[in-house]
Amino acid sequence: MESSRRTVLRAAAAGAVGAGVAGFGAPASAHSASGPRIGILLYDRFSLLDPTGPAEILSRLPGASVTMIAERTGPVRTDTGDVALLAERAMVDVRDLDVLIVPGGSEKAVLAVFEQPAVLDWIRRMHRRTQWTTSVCTGSMILGKAGLLVGKRATTYWSGKDYLETLGATYVAERYVRDGKIITSAGVSAGQDMALYLASLMAGEQTAKALQLAVEYDPQPPFDTGSPSKAGPELQKLALKLLADSQV
Amino acid sequence: MESSRRTVLRAAAAGAVGAGVAGFGAPASAHSASGPRIGILLYDRFSLLDPTGPAEILSRLPGASVTMIAERTGPVRTDTGDVALLAERAMVDVRDLDVLIVPGGSEKAVLAVFEQPAVLDWIRRMHRRTQWTTSVCTGSMILGKAGLLVGKRATTYWSGKDYLETLGATYVAERYVRDGKIITSAGVSAGQDMALYLASLMAGEQTAKALQLAVEYDPQPPFDTGSPSKAGPELQKLALKLLADSQV
Repeated sequence: MESSRRTVLRAAAAGAVGAGVAGFGAPASAHSASGPRIGILLYDRFSLLDPTGPAEILSRLPGASVTMIAERTGPVRTDTGDVALLAERAMVDVRDLDVLIVPGGSEKAVLAVFEQPAVLDWIRRMHRRTQWTTSVCTGSMILGKAGLLVGKRATTYWSGKDYLETLGATYVAERYVRDGKIITSAGVSAGQDMALYLASLMAGEQTAKALQLAVEYDPQPPFDTGSPSKAGPELQKLALKLLADSQV
Repeated sequence: MESSRRTVLRAAAAGAVGAGVAGFGAPASAHSASGPRIGILLYDRFSLLDPTGPAEILSRLPGASVTMIAERTGPVRTDTGDVALLAERAMVDVRDLDVLIVPGGSEKAVLAVFEQPAVLDWIRRMHRRTQWTTSVCTGSMILGKAGLLVGKRATTYWSGKDYLETLGATYVAERYVRDGKIITSAGVSAGQDMALYLASLMAGEQTAKALQLAVEYDPQPPFDTGSPSKAGPELQKLALKLLADSQV
């Protein structure tokens, strides 16, 4: 317990972007000077794959740094309550980013963010200076609530398309949608497809294609029920029930 | 800083499986009593998507609990040094699991685990009681080093197939390979395909198909270079260089 407390304390005390934790790998800053500064906003009850899929891919961009950012530094727990990612920067300490990624989360999570003007203000502030402002899954609802999607083409989680349009966006049923410097992606796993597209915009097709091989992204799911139309109404109902039952 | 220290301390002090952190979601134990106990082994310099892809999917199995486990509780940093996942149980405190998942990591990471007999012993001990023992990417090297793949069919990261065979396994170029109760998967992103297959074994096809829709896993990468044969030698070289350059 003592040693783990010391370790965790160091992580909190470290502060700066990707600062190293003794025994847990060298500082990210070792290779984060030259390339894009990618920031991912975490909030209570986010969905684990939304930030981690893009982070896995984009952290391999030459010289890139990927930083998990939240209202406070420290662990941020997923919508199932099972897993926590460490936020290493507080929003207030981040002045600008090259790429902002807003992941999705449970409905409860997204509605909670809607009630946090400081978070929505921070997103608007970051967006003024980003090269790319992006979202995964219901993260597009948060971009929309921040007012960034008015009159824009965008996508989101399959079951959220009507809600997205109430935020002023035009829903497009695509895996990822670019409108200006905003790129939104469909549900959860779609962040990986969006990240490869973003990688091609930032570093060129050759690098993006190599990144696809680097993560051996040659998808072969055992079924073909990943879209609502392919799944049909019965599986749609079951999918939403499994999600609801798994969320805290 | 103070508030974040308190928060992180609570996370470390919490100890038990998925214990809640005030302000970061309710305890996972709220819904972890009835279903499979899934444990994911973390170690310094693991690859972020290897544990998080399967965790996203399997944490939606009815009543399932997913727990990140490491030698010590606290943050465990990825191979890029950019991101840390919180280990919430220490190996020594975990007596048995229904499902063990061993993720992959950088070569440096895997070779470091090879030098930790306590970790290899723990894997063997867990394996005696699991329903399913699984790996993602180079995690199969760790299962192999623990002696679990002798005479078994298995897969791993595309560039590691020769090494895998030195550990007594017969390499099979498939997305995931089941031999008895051991399921190994190919590189990084393949853990998601493996998790859907595992979900079908544990909860039936209908549930697994619904989970595929729950994470909207309808892959449409912008390129088709996710396997070494599709990518060709030049992209293979570039992929390995991007990996090496991104790792700390």
